[in-house]
Amino acid sequence: MVQGASRGIGLEFVKQLLEKNDKGHVVATCRNPDRATGLVDLKDKFAERLNIVPLDLTIESTIEASAKFIREKYGSLNLLINASGILSIPNVLQPETTLSKVERSSLMLSYEVNAVGPILAIKHMWPLLKAGGGFGAERDVAVVANLSARVGSIGDNHLGGWHSYRSSKAALNQLTKNVSVEFTRRRDPIICILLHPGTVDTDLSKPFQRNVPEGKLFTKEFSVQKLLSIINNAKSHDNGKFFRLGWPGNPLVIGYSTELKSHFSYHATRICPNSLIIN
Amino acid sequence: MVQGASRGIGLEFVKQLLEKNDKGHVVATCRNPDRATGLVDLKDKFAERLNIVPLDLTIESTIEASAKFIREKYGSLNLLINASGILSIPNVLQPETTLSKVERSSLMLSYEVNAVGPILAIKHMWPLLKAGGGFGAERDVAVVANLSARVGSIGDNHLGGWHSYRSSKAALNQLTKNVSVEFTRRRDPIICILLHPGTVDTDLSKPFQRNVPEGKLFTKEFSVQKLLSIINNAKSHDNGKFFRLGWPGNPLVIGYSTELKSHFSYHATRICPNSLIIN
Ligand SMILES: NC(=O)c1ccc[n+]([C@@H]2O[C@H](COP(=O)([O-])OP(=O)(O)OC[C@H]3O[C@@H](n4cnc5c(N)ncnc54)[C@H](OP(=O)(O)O)[C@@H]3O)[C@@H](O)[C@H]2O)c1
Ligand SMILES: NC(=O)c1ccc[n+]([C@@H]2O[C@H](COP(=O)([O-])OP(=O)(O)OC[C@H]3O[C@@H](n4cnc5c(N)ncnc54)[C@H](OP(=O)(O)O)[C@@H]3O)[C@@H](O)[C@H]2O)c1
Repeated sequence: MVQGASRGIGLEFVKQLLEKNDKGHVVATCRNPDRATGLVDLKDKFAERLNIVPLDLTIESTIEASAKFIREKYGSLNLLINASGILSIPNVLQPETTLSKVERSSLMLSYEVNAVGPILAIKHMWPLLKAGGGFGAERDVAVVANLSARVGSIGDNHLGGWHSYRSSKAALNQLTKNVSVEFTRRRDPIICILLHPGTVDTDLSKPFQRNVPEGKLFTKEFSVQKLLSIINNAKSHDNGKFFRLGWPGNPLVIGYSTELKSHFSYHATRICPNSLIIN
Repeated sequence: MVQGASRGIGLEFVKQLLEKNDKGHVVATCRNPDRATGLVDLKDKFAERLNIVPLDLTIESTIEASAKFIREKYGSLNLLINASGILSIPNVLQPETTLSKVERSSLMLSYEVNAVGPILAIKHMWPLLKAGGGFGAERDVAVVANLSARVGSIGDNHLGGWHSYRSSKAALNQLTKNVSVEFTRRRDPIICILLHPGTVDTDLSKPFQRNVPEGKLFTKEFSVQKLLSIINNAKSHDNGKFFRLGWPGNPLVIGYSTELKSHFSYHATRICPNSLIIN
């Protein structure tokens, strides 16, 4: 299941999941299936292997209905990617440049979509999550992957600003940590991880791309390819880790796999105890 | 100004601020001044040095009205303590013991009160915040102190649960970090810090006190005395720090002064680069 699949990184996950595994079925959820032209095009090509299901994170009944659809059609789920997220919405949500522009409504909306929604999706899919999936070898754990953002890290915050986005992603990180602790405690064969996709060429980053150093903007094809390899290679000991795609001082793509606790320390991220070359 | 002063730690801050500085004036805010019997008792004793002003964090106009009151009566403010916070409210908010009990409404309410409210209070008091205050010596910075909680730390989260409270405090920590970065960038003579008061005997901790090891529950008198000494000794280089009262392996009270970035790493908190004996 890819939640938030109408555009951007979510849509690209659906495409690559279908293309790279010719037996796999994908449930792609989005707010408006009729207007999700990218998904409709994929449906033409992949027919019954792709299900497009309506889900709006701010309406919990649509999350429950998606769980019901999956239970009745497939009985279980081996991967849940929460790929949705909001940073700016014209006339509604403006990333804050200063404290004096912080608005209650922006904070609340960002929290609702970026932190509360993904956790409710995990809550309702939890009973369905079963091990399996992956390309080639079967994974021994089901994977829940939440798209976070490097700017959600508190320790790594040296610039300030973007109060709504940063604090909602910090909250998502804490909630993900909570979920991972519970999966371990119950010995569920499920892991929950966080992914930073790098700065990726999508609608979300468009207004800010002029700040990205030349050549350091990822295509969504490239980012999703790397993120899928992280997901497909994930093991039970990866539960609660934050994987980050980035450019640490050189043009090689390195994926950091650091435990959540480390990610939130600038020092520990530099020491990078579990660093992992992804390419 | 002590925001959230009707009970518990906030009320104790008001009491000690008035008792320990016989020239100081305090603006104590709370949702229902008429029902805040502890404040009314203090008003009898301290008369015009104590102002009780209505403020509900969920109603922004009451925050603005409090700022207007202070501007007109005093013209400036040298200390803002955000002492409010919610963990459980009978029939409304229950600290979650598992993901399956996570509710949208609990997450949203906790975020609104624990993260959004304090930041809006800082936003509206910002133009009033001027250096000065402290007992004896004048401080060279105005201080904003937000009551956080150790369980808001992501790196220190090994137990899970309490999703609403933990994630709202993680968000508060990120927002506080943002504010501290902006104060530094603008060279404002204001610092913003986070305080963990220890586990303190108040209404908030009452339902959970049976889990506190014998002799390790702080009285509010003791905790606030230590927190006030942190505030009174705060310097500009403390901007963005998380101060934590605790019992690190022995009965001595040690206050950790670690930068936010360190606090969010379990390792760095143990290494504790800026540890500071408070007693
Ligand atoms: N792009 C980057 O550089 C970057 C960097 C760091 C992290 N991220 C994270 O990566 C994730 C994907 O970002 P992206 O770049 O693909 O963004 P995007 O192109 O703007 O797509 C955002 C997706 O979220 C969906 N969405 C928004 N509100 C929703 C709601 N209430 N319910 C369900 N779905 C909703 C959108 O659906 P609609 O079409 O219906 O609006 C859309 O499918 C986000 O979590 C983002 O924070 C991205
Ligand atoms: N006690 C502990 O062990 C402990 C540990 C770690 C952190 N903390 C933190 O320390 C702070 C103080 O806690 P406490 O123990 O003193 O709690 P408390 O005794 O329960 O008092 C909470 C205060 O917050 C106020 N409040 C709640 N909702 C509000 C709103 N919407 N607008 C304005 N004020 C509101 C309450 O006012 P009403 O009287 O109107 O309800 C009350 O004055 C909190 O941030 C808490 O998270 C406490």
